[in-house]
Amino acid sequence: MALIVQKYGGTSVGTTERIEQVAKRVAAAHARGDQVCVTVSAMSGETNRLVELGTAVDPGAAPREIDVLLSTGEQVTIALLSIALHKLGCPARSFTGRQAGIRTDDAHSKARILNIDATRLRSQLEAGEVAVVAGFQGTDTEGNITTLGRGGSDTTAVALAAALEADECQIYTDVDGVYTTDPRIEPNARRLERITFEEMLEMASLGSKVLQIRAVEMAGKHNVPLRVLSSFEDGPGTLITYEEDGMEQPLISSIASNRDEAQLTMAGIPDKPGIAYAVLGPIAAANIEVDMIVQNVGDDASTDLTFTVHRNDYERALEIVTRIGEEVGASSVTGDNGIAKLSLVGVGMRSHAGIASRMFEALAGVGINIRMISTSEIKISVVVDDKFLELGVRTLHEAFGLANEA
Amino acid sequence: MALIVQKYGGTSVGTTERIEQVAKRVAAAHARGDQVCVTVSAMSGETNRLVELGTAVDPGAAPREIDVLLSTGEQVTIALLSIALHKLGCPARSFTGRQAGIRTDDAHSKARILNIDATRLRSQLEAGEVAVVAGFQGTDTEGNITTLGRGGSDTTAVALAAALEADECQIYTDVDGVYTTDPRIEPNARRLERITFEEMLEMASLGSKVLQIRAVEMAGKHNVPLRVLSSFEDGPGTLITYEEDGMEQPLISSIASNRDEAQLTMAGIPDKPGIAYAVLGPIAAANIEVDMIVQNVGDDASTDLTFTVHRNDYERALEIVTRIGEEVGASSVTGDNGIAKLSLVGVGMRSHAGIASRMFEALAGVGINIRMISTSEIKISVVVDDKFLELGVRTLHEAFGLANEA
Repeated sequence: MALIVQKYGGTSVGTTERIEQVAKRVAAAHARGDQVCVTVSAMSGETNRLVELGTAVDPGAAPREIDVLLSTGEQVTIALLSIALHKLGCPARSFTGRQAGIRTDDAHSKARILNIDATRLRSQLEAGEVAVVAGFQGTDTEGNITTLGRGGSDTTAVALAAALEADECQIYTDVDGVYTTDPRIEPNARRLERITFEEMLEMASLGSKVLQIRAVEMAGKHNVPLRVLSSFEDGPGTLITYEEDGMEQPLISSIASNRDEAQLTMAGIPDKPGIAYAVLGPIAAANIEVDMIVQNVGDDASTDLTFTVHRNDYERALEIVTRIGEEVGASSVTGDNGIAKLSLVGVGMRSHAGIASRMFEALAGVGINIRMISTSEIKISVVVDDKFLELGVRTLHEAFGLANEA
Repeated sequence: MALIVQKYGGTSVGTTERIEQVAKRVAAAHARGDQVCVTVSAMSGETNRLVELGTAVDPGAAPREIDVLLSTGEQVTIALLSIALHKLGCPARSFTGRQAGIRTDDAHSKARILNIDATRLRSQLEAGEVAVVAGFQGTDTEGNITTLGRGGSDTTAVALAAALEADECQIYTDVDGVYTTDPRIEPNARRLERITFEEMLEMASLGSKVLQIRAVEMAGKHNVPLRVLSSFEDGPGTLITYEEDGMEQPLISSIASNRDEAQLTMAGIPDKPGIAYAVLGPIAAANIEVDMIVQNVGDDASTDLTFTVHRNDYERALEIVTRIGEEVGASSVTGDNGIAKLSLVGVGMRSHAGIASRMFEALAGVGINIRMISTSEIKISVVVDDKFLELGVRTLHEAFGLANEA
């Protein structure tokens, strides 16, 4: 007998028919003798409907009231799922965030969970009944309703799993696991049996939509085994855990790619302390997030600084950088929003040299020019021309043998 | 400065535009220096939408979960109204039933309010801010969400007014007050400036939809002055209070009428103790509610028993009565679902004789035959042929001078 936390997202509970399908999965786990705590999102479309109602009244509505408004979305789902479970003869009870004992700080619309008083949930599970908990919400110490921000239901699931000391936290979604790369780009992409928290974190930070980064961080911190599965078909999904000793780790787990960024370069600027801050300070002050940063030492006393921002921020960033370029006497300021980023992720990099050169060799072999490189302990990212994204992904997937069973 | 509780029903908050109109009324009261506590229903259509979702999963859903589901309707409205008030610069905060301290028993879907811990609401009002409370809901002593049943928002308003010792409880609706009779039948019908709790109770029990009977009872019990007003146009509405000494009471306040009932008669039954029970017991056992009951003593040892039921129950009731008629040896069993009921309501009846005869005289004057009569201390009801309803209402309205200012 295991204690399992399951989480179903908005698409999985998008209609009453789908909620009944979810109920079947939950009831099956319960019938196997597991203690099951389920957390759910709002039915897909519902949160947008509520946001539109609020925006129709005032686009600048107070976050406290927006939270009161949005939290009803998950409350509807917990009631409907409990009803569907009863219909299958499976004992169940719904819990709002407050009833589940989820206490958060008071940062409305982006609250963080402070702690979970799981007394009531635990007695529900010990009585052999399913607990159905509203995701994405809690109450602050004053009893005000808070929400964890979009996608917060993943975080709720992991926090519940940690508080209940669950054996596994299962995230049901519309994909059947984590893949070696985006199957829409590379048809040979393969579902991974397992992946480490660190790799999953890198992938989330590279834009993978499979799991919320906060949820992965929290699972890693509390050592909660996390599994990504499909709510529409059966299958083992992908297990996310810590590296286990004695296990052969694949060199590379996966290849991430995106077209979300734009590149800015300031060339010929004085190579002196504080110059990076002089450029990036005003960017940060304008609330523009910077992703990759590369600084080359030039051959004279000048240097080049290149960085990437989200493509939506490109125009604003270029304007700021042009102004600063004039102030610091840069020889040129250029930008390009036609770029793509390709990344290799894998904990195997730690113990294997030569990964980077194999990557560069493979890309050169098909004529892809690398414009920018950035590395971390378990990741190598390169910036290439936008048009090379698909070719680059397929080339790397082949070069590192990801299509073959690890 | 007064402390006012206002209640707005589903039609009054049916769209975001209407919610903004309501906000203007609330803000205007607040700007006049009043302390304002507002309670609202779900947006019209929303409760039905939620019921349909629940029914789609299981028509026999557990009442506890239905309450979790339905209570979201009012929660959406309190958030939207608070947002609309902020937009007008009016300080406000939303309160769910639980946050407002509304404690109920655990009779899900038809819970009764046990008490209201108004500490938090009172400090909100004393800080000069509007409190926006979800109607129709509360929590039981275990913290489970409960609802008061349909129309329960009126009850919430009155209970809040009693707990806050409000100076007035204002029920905003789609009519501008209580009328001497249905204006769709009698164009000369006149809005009443005031009416007593007892008259309002009689009218509610006669089918007037203006106020929920439980809310009127509770207002009377706690002596909360109740005012019915329109949320769409300005006007003083109708004040419902206790009779005041020294005030000239009109003889008759209003005329109620309906076509909701059907009549059943069992003639020539043995006139002996227990015969009424023998007939009406099986009717009650079939969950059919009986309204008027009249028993005539016949000239021999037999009697006639006539009673009315809701028209929807007519066929079932006739079947039962026919069977019993055979058992007790009745000479005939007849029924008629083509009847109408006309009622005069007025506390003035208590001190004035001759009202009934004036009523009968007026109806006879236009050739309306009376088929059944029933009286209470402040009401006279007669059953007539269906086709005479409009003529009867207009005749009585004229005969008692209700069109003239009282």
